[in-house]
Amino acid sequence: MSINARITGVRALLKKHHIDALIVSSSDPHQSEYISGHWKGREWITGFDGSAGTALVTHNHAGLWTDSRYFLQAEQQLSISTFNLHKIVDRTSPGYIEWLCSNLNDGDTVAINGLTCSKAQEISLRSQLNKHNIKLVTHLDLIAEAWTNQPPLPNSKAFKLDDIFTGKAAKTKITEIRKHIFVKKAKYILLAALDEIAWTLNIRSKDIEYNPVAMCFLLIGSEKNYLYIDEIKIIQLKDYLRELDITIRPYESLDEDLKNLKEPILLDHTICNAYHHDCIDSTLVINSPSIPNILKAEKNDVELENFKKSMIKDGVALSMAFNWLENNMHNGISEFDFGEKLTHFRAQQENYFGKSFSPIVGFNSNGAIIHYRAKKDTAKIINGNGWLLCDSGAQFYEGTTDITRTFSFGEPNEEQKKAYTLVLMGHIDLAMAQFPKGTKGVQLDLLARQHLWQEGMNYAHGTGHGVGHFLNVHEGPQGFDSGNSARGKAEIKLGMVTSNEPGYYKKDGFGVRIENLVVTVNADTPNYLKFETITLYPIDKKPIDKKLMNNAQIEWLNHYHRLVWEKLSPHLDEELQNWLKPQCSPI
Amino acid sequence: MSINARITGVRALLKKHHIDALIVSSSDPHQSEYISGHWKGREWITGFDGSAGTALVTHNHAGLWTDSRYFLQAEQQLSISTFNLHKIVDRTSPGYIEWLCSNLNDGDTVAINGLTCSKAQEISLRSQLNKHNIKLVTHLDLIAEAWTNQPPLPNSKAFKLDDIFTGKAAKTKITEIRKHIFVKKAKYILLAALDEIAWTLNIRSKDIEYNPVAMCFLLIGSEKNYLYIDEIKIIQLKDYLRELDITIRPYESLDEDLKNLKEPILLDHTICNAYHHDCIDSTLVINSPSIPNILKAEKNDVELENFKKSMIKDGVALSMAFNWLENNMHNGISEFDFGEKLTHFRAQQENYFGKSFSPIVGFNSNGAIIHYRAKKDTAKIINGNGWLLCDSGAQFYEGTTDITRTFSFGEPNEEQKKAYTLVLMGHIDLAMAQFPKGTKGVQLDLLARQHLWQEGMNYAHGTGHGVGHFLNVHEGPQGFDSGNSARGKAEIKLGMVTSNEPGYYKKDGFGVRIENLVVTVNADTPNYLKFETITLYPIDKKPIDKKLMNNAQIEWLNHYHRLVWEKLSPHLDEELQNWLKPQCSPI
Repeated sequence: MSINARITGVRALLKKHHIDALIVSSSDPHQSEYISGHWKGREWITGFDGSAGTALVTHNHAGLWTDSRYFLQAEQQLSISTFNLHKIVDRTSPGYIEWLCSNLNDGDTVAINGLTCSKAQEISLRSQLNKHNIKLVTHLDLIAEAWTNQPPLPNSKAFKLDDIFTGKAAKTKITEIRKHIFVKKAKYILLAALDEIAWTLNIRSKDIEYNPVAMCFLLIGSEKNYLYIDEIKIIQLKDYLRELDITIRPYESLDEDLKNLKEPILLDHTICNAYHHDCIDSTLVINSPSIPNILKAEKNDVELENFKKSMIKDGVALSMAFNWLENNMHNGISEFDFGEKLTHFRAQQENYFGKSFSPIVGFNSNGAIIHYRAKKDTAKIINGNGWLLCDSGAQFYEGTTDITRTFSFGEPNEEQKKAYTLVLMGHIDLAMAQFPKGTKGVQLDLLARQHLWQEGMNYAHGTGHGVGHFLNVHEGPQGFDSGNSARGKAEIKLGMVTSNEPGYYKKDGFGVRIENLVVTVNADTPNYLKFETITLYPIDKKPIDKKLMNNAQIEWLNHYHRLVWEKLSPHLDEELQNWLKPQCSPI
Repeated sequence: MSINARITGVRALLKKHHIDALIVSSSDPHQSEYISGHWKGREWITGFDGSAGTALVTHNHAGLWTDSRYFLQAEQQLSISTFNLHKIVDRTSPGYIEWLCSNLNDGDTVAINGLTCSKAQEISLRSQLNKHNIKLVTHLDLIAEAWTNQPPLPNSKAFKLDDIFTGKAAKTKITEIRKHIFVKKAKYILLAALDEIAWTLNIRSKDIEYNPVAMCFLLIGSEKNYLYIDEIKIIQLKDYLRELDITIRPYESLDEDLKNLKEPILLDHTICNAYHHDCIDSTLVINSPSIPNILKAEKNDVELENFKKSMIKDGVALSMAFNWLENNMHNGISEFDFGEKLTHFRAQQENYFGKSFSPIVGFNSNGAIIHYRAKKDTAKIINGNGWLLCDSGAQFYEGTTDITRTFSFGEPNEEQKKAYTLVLMGHIDLAMAQFPKGTKGVQLDLLARQHLWQEGMNYAHGTGHGVGHFLNVHEGPQGFDSGNSARGKAEIKLGMVTSNEPGYYKKDGFGVRIENLVVTVNADTPNYLKFETITLYPIDKKPIDKKLMNNAQIEWLNHYHRLVWEKLSPHLDEELQNWLKPQCSPI
């Protein structure tokens, strides 16, 4: 069915239900960033498969709102349909709400599936629409009604992740969460975020691509716990879950149980979906930032030791992959082929579980598309002259990896060398930062941007995001971000793992991004923190304009390369050692 | 009457009115930072005269909550009473509310004078207290009841500031504000902030020390305007105000007029006091950020040209004052004496109106008290060996000045030189910054702190605040701030005047602060902004450890000193020129 036929189908349903506009979000009932096919209604209706974006269908307009990371991709993918691209320039205001307020009439009705938006989003949306006397309904799922071949919910088997990887038993985590429930004077807490549940129970699964989680809800009570999940998915975990005082309930019966609740319940308005929220007697709800979200982000020593092991595996696999590329480039390797090779070499490592996201391999102008994904048919050939940006990562039992390197093949010009060096200087300044406890990501973000800004250059994405421990590659609460995101406002705390990934993108030209993961560690000064860079792979030295860098930056780079060599070389054969060694020499 | 007798008096009133706790804020009905004696109830009840702090009196506790800028001062001033100092460490949470929630009982009643808190503060306070079933009443003024010698309201004569200083006629400003009222679909806007009214009407007065404003309220309507002010204060302005369609009404009759209002009114919850807000039919209120607050901050070209003239006067006066100090130090000049001399030399300049704040002259350990004010009897003698911190400013018709310099007399030690140089490097990095439009103060604050942080050093205040044009020395909306203040979240826009004042304070040792005012100007790159430093006075070169600085910082300093010399020297006699010249030579 063509996109235009789908729009026609949805419009017929709008008419039938007396709805004037349908909002189709990119979310699932768990506020997941990556979602299973069942919930990809926004992609189905628009044809745009970027991870962020909101679609709107009215009787005479079909629009997609997305942010700067996706402008190029959306322009390409929407060109075959009648969907209009609305660019979100200021990420603080989701433009589609303003559009609705300006374009609908007094008394009109907007629909959104309450399962696919958080309660906080619904409150904000409703209050803005109400000012213009526009009604909001959340009980309809028009996409399900229109989408004849909607994929079923996923049903992978979940498994227990051993405490040698997690460092903390699920029983202990539940005890900590129950203490929090007690302090907040509640009887229950509802966990809806899939990575929070996976972290709490020390289970992993394959329900969602890239994110090793199981689709379920977890209700932790001061005495008993309830896991809402299709029983077939945890058939081998029954004893384990019973030991955790967990009763298994069908995924679909959460709403019924919530309706019958009689005691105070903690939930996080920014995570709990509007539909499930509204099942609960409103006098019982205590809106409170989700505690596992914070506990999970501050990694324990066992998790951090494992993280470091995963970085060695990742560095070894990258050595093999980039060596392979160098040796085979003359055969015409495409961006797509090389993405596959990256996966191939990672998959040879022990305890490999999968990709942590779809690799971004962008040659020359494709490197300037921030969230580019090469397709088999249209991928560029990585010929020996130009810039290659590779952003990729893996899931190992020991940890989640996420690394970007940019390579210059052939002779870089002055503009390119300058851009590359300014990005590197920002990366290093952030990596070297020391800061008092309580500092937030928004305060540190400038370290990575300042050298670019002085030259009137910038990058249209955050500088870094939290990374889960064998969990989601994007996790909250923290991040380095210039914007008004919740991420930027969160404190950078001890044990957090965060990406450090400044970049520069010249449209139709080339892209630069240099990304390592850093752990927050104690500094020598009491009450001060600093970062330890844990990602291990050489940073291309060829495009560096050394005279732009200060001594501290040069020293950091040389020290980093010494570390990379020390950690990776014992795991490489002699040929690879000989190949890697000069890449780790000082500048 | 002793502080303890005042507490006893207030406690008797608590009993009489069945109140369990009284909150005494530091504010007036206009949310002024500096307040007239009539509203200094918090100072009267506690004895603490710092500008920020909240007092709480219950039947068995008397406490003052203040932030780190005032810890030392409050410790000294509260020592003679039974008031307990509660230190606010995290400025995001006013600790006294938490204290009330933990220490009062279910069903208790708290009182605050609704005139002395904004509606936003009252809403937040009420919602937090309500959670603990504690009532809030806002109709009582217990301080007025207890304070037998409460000073009357001020009644200075207001005057018109000529358009050659303001660059924009009041009529034009009112037209701009009326456009905003129209856009927001209202009929009125209530202005309560005194500097906003002074800016809008181009009038100035002396009702409040340091702030050249008149106590009044202004109600701008789409057709008529109403100024609530004691008529005696504007007797010479009657014709001028009539031309602006302004009807004069008594200051006290605002509440009656608000009660009779029948059409929608814009007001800013963070400025309008709770009492006046609650006079209005709540369905008519549109809460919206005050438009003059933003218009006022983006100075026009005439204001900026005048600002620069005021900086020359200020620099000339400082040259005279510091030269005088150097020549007279052997006679035993105290901090207090020198503060008076600073004022003396400024007052000789044309169009001088007064101080913009009480000068901070702190020698050695007193320099480490961030908001220190020397008293005549207890001031230190500035002997020839040590560190002198001078933070002072003036009101000229041309503009408001605010400058801090730190001088090292005698031989600075290594620790002191390092601290001084790191502060200077931060000051310069911020002064040199270039940034894209839309950048907020919180993002830039780090530039001033980064070098200190790397050494585990910091300063417990914001890096900068907005400065009014011949108006309040602290004005919104913008600022450089690491905290969660509204100031840090505001955009740094073209034409704004902001202070750049990093520091370092070693308790019982010495203080360093280097402060200039900067104007936001366009950078060469489109859509980028940068700063122009407009304050003109040499920065002490003696304590600089040049090897810590990079070339760009050294160049900036040398260029700045060249500018200071060029601008000031034509206004100095030969003796002063000879004295100033070496201070402006390159390092």
